[in-house]
Amino acid sequence: MRKSAQNGILKSMMRQPVCTSTIETSPCAENTLNPIRKLVDQLVINPNPEKSLLKLSIGDPSVFGNFDPPPQVLKAVSDNLATSCYGYVPAHGLVSTREAIAKYYNTRTSPLTSEDVYVTSGCSDALRIAMECLGSEKRNILLPKPGFSLYQTIAGNRGIPVKFYDLDPEKDWSIDLDQLESLIDENTAAILVTNPSNPCGSAFSVQHQLDILAVAERHGLPLIADEIYQNMVFEGESKSFGELSENVPVLSCGGLAKRWLVPGWRVGWLIAHDRHNRLSKVRDGLTRLCQVIIGANVLVQGAIPQILETVPQSFYDDTLNRLKNAADIVYSELKDCPQIRPFKPKGAMYMMVQIKIDQFEDIKDDMEFVEKLITEQSVFPLPANIFGIPNYVRLVLTVPEDILREACKRIVEFCEHHKVGVPHKKPRAETS
Amino acid sequence: MRKSAQNGILKSMMRQPVCTSTIETSPCAENTLNPIRKLVDQLVINPNPEKSLLKLSIGDPSVFGNFDPPPQVLKAVSDNLATSCYGYVPAHGLVSTREAIAKYYNTRTSPLTSEDVYVTSGCSDALRIAMECLGSEKRNILLPKPGFSLYQTIAGNRGIPVKFYDLDPEKDWSIDLDQLESLIDENTAAILVTNPSNPCGSAFSVQHQLDILAVAERHGLPLIADEIYQNMVFEGESKSFGELSENVPVLSCGGLAKRWLVPGWRVGWLIAHDRHNRLSKVRDGLTRLCQVIIGANVLVQGAIPQILETVPQSFYDDTLNRLKNAADIVYSELKDCPQIRPFKPKGAMYMMVQIKIDQFEDIKDDMEFVEKLITEQSVFPLPANIFGIPNYVRLVLTVPEDILREACKRIVEFCEHHKVGVPHKKPRAETS
Repeated sequence: MRKSAQNGILKSMMRQPVCTSTIETSPCAENTLNPIRKLVDQLVINPNPEKSLLKLSIGDPSVFGNFDPPPQVLKAVSDNLATSCYGYVPAHGLVSTREAIAKYYNTRTSPLTSEDVYVTSGCSDALRIAMECLGSEKRNILLPKPGFSLYQTIAGNRGIPVKFYDLDPEKDWSIDLDQLESLIDENTAAILVTNPSNPCGSAFSVQHQLDILAVAERHGLPLIADEIYQNMVFEGESKSFGELSENVPVLSCGGLAKRWLVPGWRVGWLIAHDRHNRLSKVRDGLTRLCQVIIGANVLVQGAIPQILETVPQSFYDDTLNRLKNAADIVYSELKDCPQIRPFKPKGAMYMMVQIKIDQFEDIKDDMEFVEKLITEQSVFPLPANIFGIPNYVRLVLTVPEDILREACKRIVEFCEHHKVGVPHKKPRAETS
Repeated sequence: MRKSAQNGILKSMMRQPVCTSTIETSPCAENTLNPIRKLVDQLVINPNPEKSLLKLSIGDPSVFGNFDPPPQVLKAVSDNLATSCYGYVPAHGLVSTREAIAKYYNTRTSPLTSEDVYVTSGCSDALRIAMECLGSEKRNILLPKPGFSLYQTIAGNRGIPVKFYDLDPEKDWSIDLDQLESLIDENTAAILVTNPSNPCGSAFSVQHQLDILAVAERHGLPLIADEIYQNMVFEGESKSFGELSENVPVLSCGGLAKRWLVPGWRVGWLIAHDRHNRLSKVRDGLTRLCQVIIGANVLVQGAIPQILETVPQSFYDDTLNRLKNAADIVYSELKDCPQIRPFKPKGAMYMMVQIKIDQFEDIKDDMEFVEKLITEQSVFPLPANIFGIPNYVRLVLTVPEDILREACKRIVEFCEHHKVGVPHKKPRAETS
């Protein structure tokens, strides 16, 4: 401890009485839980020092330098920095930015104007505002399982009860619609859907999207659509829920993070698709909720019109081609390993791999699989129990090809070492 | 309406049944109120077309181009843009940024490390996190009156009960400490203080700060200190509450907005001053609360170490000199007008002016004063009832000198026209 601090403490201890009780926090703070943080607290991460650590855990395309944003994105922000772009703008976004986003996502079936767009501090903030605006302590929201863990963080923060509907891995991670419908009660405020999906790497068929909308319509419910991976589908058509919806109001959440590869810039948006003007109260609520933190960074949000205008289609195509190529590599490297089962992705930037627990001699769940994989092979995928599904791991596909191949090789070797029938070996750390 | 939209609606109307009920919003959305927005909704803004509109209403130094950020701030962000600064960083901020902020605000009496700093999406977000972490539906927070209206927006959003303590204009806007103490009950979670003050333009004496800390200490309460205008004091010493506190934990909220003149960039910070480790639970809560929207823009927060290192003292001195000069001009232009009373500011970028309602023939309150001032003279100060004090207006001092002088001239002329004894004239709009 520094001397000056010590002096201060001594001095203050001489005064009486000194209150020393711990300051309490609110239930809100206590109930704001991030499952990934809980995982990091619990997981024993102790890589094999003889092998380089291969991290396939974080959904951040910028980590390895192979998925950088296009130069047009950087130029747009740089240009904006030169034009005295410092001041406050409307809390729900610059008109020009909202106009550009509306124009970009406008469709024949769901015409949009700037009035339909709310600029937010990242897609996370869009999701927060959507969930806060519709859900409450008395009004529940239905969430996908497996699903992105932030939804639970937001629900916990706000005290919103949640119920989980299942995605079926045997049916391309589509929603079990009967089960979904059975969860709806008179206090359900909204259904939250993610498409394409983090963590599944799946993309719904248009027919399945229409079927989901039909369930929502029967119960008069709006959708919150996490569409941060919109248009990031490897094959076939990619439609937004807003575009397909006729009568169901859709709050679509998106942002620059994934498609434009700048997750740390924290600029996203919420688009209200509302063909029958059923969101009049909700729109007012969204505007109010944007005013709490007074909006998103103006340097980046002001660059959005230029970004949307200048980034060429070839950039988006190239990103998708490279993600698809990564998915093909990982799938083909892992598909013949009997102890695991990779699920070929259709979009986004992830692959789910099932751990066939009964095929392993000495591994009881995905947590132990990942811990031992790190300890022995220095490969770090994310155990999918944090997304609500046990005995899967999620691999990130934005990792460079050579690292992906090496990681797959090590995973297969690891499975071979731990398969049923191979005598249980003590972990490296204990034997050395 | 576009033809395509019409087709869609017609098509959907042919299906039965179509749910057309309005979607309800949460109590949280309904209770998130921004007093400034309410004002703008209610105020009749109808400037005199023969006179240019002089806006002294918005606390945004970037509006007129005379208070631009220093070139070092722009260079730091530009340099950062060139170094692949795109990815996610810890939700409560980059270590290097937290270290730089800790070093900058470190004092002998309150030594700081990066562990004491939380980077947020603007000072608003810091205030939100501080209030959410301490207050709850059962735990009230004491707020200043007059005070910055965002505190009420945040409290309403979170359902936190508030009680208002008075600032006394006759005593340099210091706190009525007896009244403050009388408001504290067993459910009080924190006292929020603003120093220097928006809207008052006041700055507490060090002795008054110590007296406030003594009240908090007697009741074992932490302070939330809105110190976004820290170091922006025209004369005498400027101390933070954290620096002066011996036993009172202080959550100090700040940011780049005002001192570095980039309010739209939305990067702020919360500093936990906690000499006796009474904030262990609170620190955990703050970290969790930062995870809901996953932090502040990395392009700007990553530039903070360079900003704090390279902006010269002469820039800060120049800003303060120009603000003080503006305050002197406005004070001397208005001080002899019998119908109003300007209060000379000691810091920040505002001046409060009392409207002596009984000296006016036909003006009943600050709202009517401002409405008629806009209609007749095209001068727009903010009626201070939105800050909780009636019959004052707040003038912004970052306006260029010539506009300030012209605004003062028009205000004096306006007062002369409406003073007691002058026959009531019909408003311009009705006579023309």
